[in-house]
Amino acid sequence: MPKLSERSARMPESPIRKLVPLAEQAVKKGIKVHRLNIGQPDIHTSPEAMQAIRNIKAPVIEYTHSAGLESLRKKLVEYYKRFDIDVTPDDMIITTGGSEAISITLLACLNPGDEIIVPEPFYANYFSFATTSDVNVTPITSVIDNNYALPSIEAFESKITNRTKAIIICNPNNPTGYLYSREELEQIRHLVKKHDLYLLADEVYRELVFDGEYFPAMHLKGIEDNLILIDSMSKRYSATGLRTGALVTKNKDLINTALKFGQARLAPPYVGQIAGEAAIDTSTQYLNEVHAEYKKRRDFIVDALNKMEGVVCPMPKGAFYCMAKLPVDDAEKFCQWILSDFSYNNQSVMLAPASGFYSTKNSGKQEVRLAFVLNVDELKESMECLKHALLQYPGRDLEATSSLIQKSSVNIGI
Amino acid sequence: MPKLSERSARMPESPIRKLVPLAEQAVKKGIKVHRLNIGQPDIHTSPEAMQAIRNIKAPVIEYTHSAGLESLRKKLVEYYKRFDIDVTPDDMIITTGGSEAISITLLACLNPGDEIIVPEPFYANYFSFATTSDVNVTPITSVIDNNYALPSIEAFESKITNRTKAIIICNPNNPTGYLYSREELEQIRHLVKKHDLYLLADEVYRELVFDGEYFPAMHLKGIEDNLILIDSMSKRYSATGLRTGALVTKNKDLINTALKFGQARLAPPYVGQIAGEAAIDTSTQYLNEVHAEYKKRRDFIVDALNKMEGVVCPMPKGAFYCMAKLPVDDAEKFCQWILSDFSYNNQSVMLAPASGFYSTKNSGKQEVRLAFVLNVDELKESMECLKHALLQYPGRDLEATSSLIQKSSVNIGI
Repeated sequence: MPKLSERSARMPESPIRKLVPLAEQAVKKGIKVHRLNIGQPDIHTSPEAMQAIRNIKAPVIEYTHSAGLESLRKKLVEYYKRFDIDVTPDDMIITTGGSEAISITLLACLNPGDEIIVPEPFYANYFSFATTSDVNVTPITSVIDNNYALPSIEAFESKITNRTKAIIICNPNNPTGYLYSREELEQIRHLVKKHDLYLLADEVYRELVFDGEYFPAMHLKGIEDNLILIDSMSKRYSATGLRTGALVTKNKDLINTALKFGQARLAPPYVGQIAGEAAIDTSTQYLNEVHAEYKKRRDFIVDALNKMEGVVCPMPKGAFYCMAKLPVDDAEKFCQWILSDFSYNNQSVMLAPASGFYSTKNSGKQEVRLAFVLNVDELKESMECLKHALLQYPGRDLEATSSLIQKSSVNIGI
Repeated sequence: MPKLSERSARMPESPIRKLVPLAEQAVKKGIKVHRLNIGQPDIHTSPEAMQAIRNIKAPVIEYTHSAGLESLRKKLVEYYKRFDIDVTPDDMIITTGGSEAISITLLACLNPGDEIIVPEPFYANYFSFATTSDVNVTPITSVIDNNYALPSIEAFESKITNRTKAIIICNPNNPTGYLYSREELEQIRHLVKKHDLYLLADEVYRELVFDGEYFPAMHLKGIEDNLILIDSMSKRYSATGLRTGALVTKNKDLINTALKFGQARLAPPYVGQIAGEAAIDTSTQYLNEVHAEYKKRRDFIVDALNKMEGVVCPMPKGAFYCMAKLPVDDAEKFCQWILSDFSYNNQSVMLAPASGFYSTKNSGKQEVRLAFVLNVDELKESMECLKHALLQYPGRDLEATSSLIQKSSVNIGI
C-alpha cells in the first residue's frame, strides 16, 4: 500500500468533531445529547435566504464567475458600507465558506515553512489550513486570567522571526468571545506595517457583538496592501450549510492571484450565492431578534457556569461561544466521560475540549468551549447536566481552578 | 507590500477563462459570442434536482457531516451498483465538486516534490491542484495522429522515477474525448501495482459515452488500496453549480485521512447535497435525451470541423469535448484574434487554446478544445463563423496540419 503524505500525519482531527462517535453511541443508548460542541445554531435560517432558494428561477444550476456572481459582490459592497468599510466588487472573491478564503490566502501569500502568528486559543481549523499549505503556526497565548485579552505588543513582537509572514486575528473571537479594542488593533497595525506582514482579519461574527464596539480591521490606515478580510454568511444568517464566504482585500496583486486559485476550483456554489445575496436584505427585525436571543443565551449560560463550584467562565463580548475552566484533571477526558459513562435524567452534553484550540502543548487542559447555539430551555437542561457531571466525575479537581477563582471575581461572570 | 508566495507565480491562469475579458469586450461591441470554451452545458438541470432545491424543507441550512450526508452516500452506493462498482457509504466522502476530491487526494497522498504522471493533453486544473499541493506534474504525451490514445506502457514506465507517487487518468477524457479500453486500463493497473502508486480515476463523464464501452477503474483487481475514484454530479445532471462531488476509495487509511482534510473545511454545501441525492433518481428518459442530444451535437460539430480546409478533429468517444488541430500559426493568438478583430454576421466564437492542456512546452500550439455544450443551431452558427475566421485569419497556415491530413483519413471524422 502506498504511503500517505507527511502532512497527513500532521493534520489534526477536528477537536470539535472527534467526540462524534461517543455521542452517537450515547444516542443509541437512548440518551439525549445536548450539542454545545459545534457552532451550528438551531436558529432558523434568514427567511430571505430560504425564499431565494425555494424560488430559484434559473433552468440550469451553472458555474458562476470564479470570483462569484457580480450581483452578489455588488450587494456585499452595500453590506460593508453599513460598517463604513469601503470596497468595490473587484476587491473580493466569493469563496466556499470563510474556510476557503483562509486557505486561498495562505496558499497565495505564504511559502512552505513560513510562519503565521495566531493568538491562542484559536479557531482550530486555522491550524488545519496552515498544515495543508505547509505553513507553521506560531501561537501567542492569551489567558483566561485576563479574559483572553490580546497579549502585550512586546510579547507579540518577540514572536516575529525572519520567516514570519502573517498574523491572523478573529474578531469577535472564536473560541473566546473576546472583542478586540481599537487600541489593540492599532498596535497590531503598527507591527504589520513595521514588519511588512499580512494581516488576516476573520470577522465573521461582526453582527454578534453584545458589549463594546466592533472595530473593523478595514478601518486601519496605511496597511491596505497587507490586509485581508475573511468573511462568511454562515453565522449571521444562521446558514452554515450555504458555504458562502468572501476574501476581501485592496491588494490588487493578491486579488488577481487569489482568482487564479479560485479558477482552479471553477466557482463557489451557485445556490449558496443566490441565497447569500438575498440574505443581505434580511430584515432588521430578524437580525435584532437573533442578536437578542444570543444575548439571552449568553447571559444565562455564563451565569449558570460561574455558579457551579470551581467553574470559571469569562463573559464573552461577541460571537456565540464561551470558554470555561472546569475543576477537572483533564477536560478532554471529562468530555469523553460525560458522553460514555454519565447521564443525568437520561441526558448528556457534548462540549469541545479546549486543548484543540491551542498549539502550545499541554495548554487549556482544564478548559472547554461551549457554543450557545441552543435555546435557553435546552441550555438549562445542559447546565443542570453539566453541574451533576462535574460533581460525579472521578477526576474532579477543585485545585485546578481555585487560584483563578480567588484572583478574579471582577473579570468573570455577570 | 509583502511578497506573494512562490507557488502563486507558478499557479497558471485558467486557459479556459483567460479569454473572458476579450469576450466581454466583443459583447460590448454588440457581437454575439458562442461560448465553446468551457464545459458549461445549456441543457436544463435534472428536474429531480431542481425540485429538491425548490422543495427544501429544513428550517436551517446547516453543516452536514464532514463526509457528507449519510443519505446521499447511501444513494451513491446504489448509483455505483448500476456500474457494478461495489462500495459502501464509508468508502467515500462527499466533496465540493470533483475539484475538491482531487485536491484532497493530492494533499493526503503526495509530499511536496513528489510526482504525478498525467497523460497530456489533460484537464488544465490538474496542473493547478498539483501546484497548490507543491506536487510536480510529469506529462506523458498522447498525440492527435493516434486519436490521443494512451501512449505505450513502456513510454509510461519510462516516466516513473523514485519521486513518482501517482497517476491520474480521466476516462472518458476531458479534453480529448478519448475512452480508455479495458486493455489500456489493465496495463495501467500493472504499473500501479508494480510500482505501488496511487491511481486517481476521474470518471465524471461516465454517463456520456457514445462509442465503445466504459470500463470503470474500480473493476481493476488487486489495487484496491491504490485506487481513488474522483466523481462529480456536475456533468451528468447538468448542474455544474451544485459543487457536489465525491472521493471514493477502499483504502481505509486514506478515507480516514481525507476526512481530516474534510473536517478542516467543515462540510460540503448542504443544498448541493440535497439536490445531488435527488438527482440520482433522475429519470432514464432525461438521461437518454441528454445523451442523444450530446451525440447529435458531437456528430454535427466533428463533421463540420473536418469539412473545413486544413482542420483535423478526431472523433471523441465520450464526454462533451473535441480537440481540433487548426491551420493556424498559433491557436492562442487565433483564439484572441477571433474575439478581438473578427466577427461574421455579428457573431464570434470563444474556444479554449489547447496549450493550457499541455505541460510540455510548445505542445498543442495549433490545437483548440471545443465543448459542444450548445444546441445544434448555435453550433451551426459557430462553425460557420469559425470557417470564415480561419479563411480570414492573417496567421493562416495550411502547412501546419497538411501532413496529418494526408496521413490519417481513417482515424478522423465520421
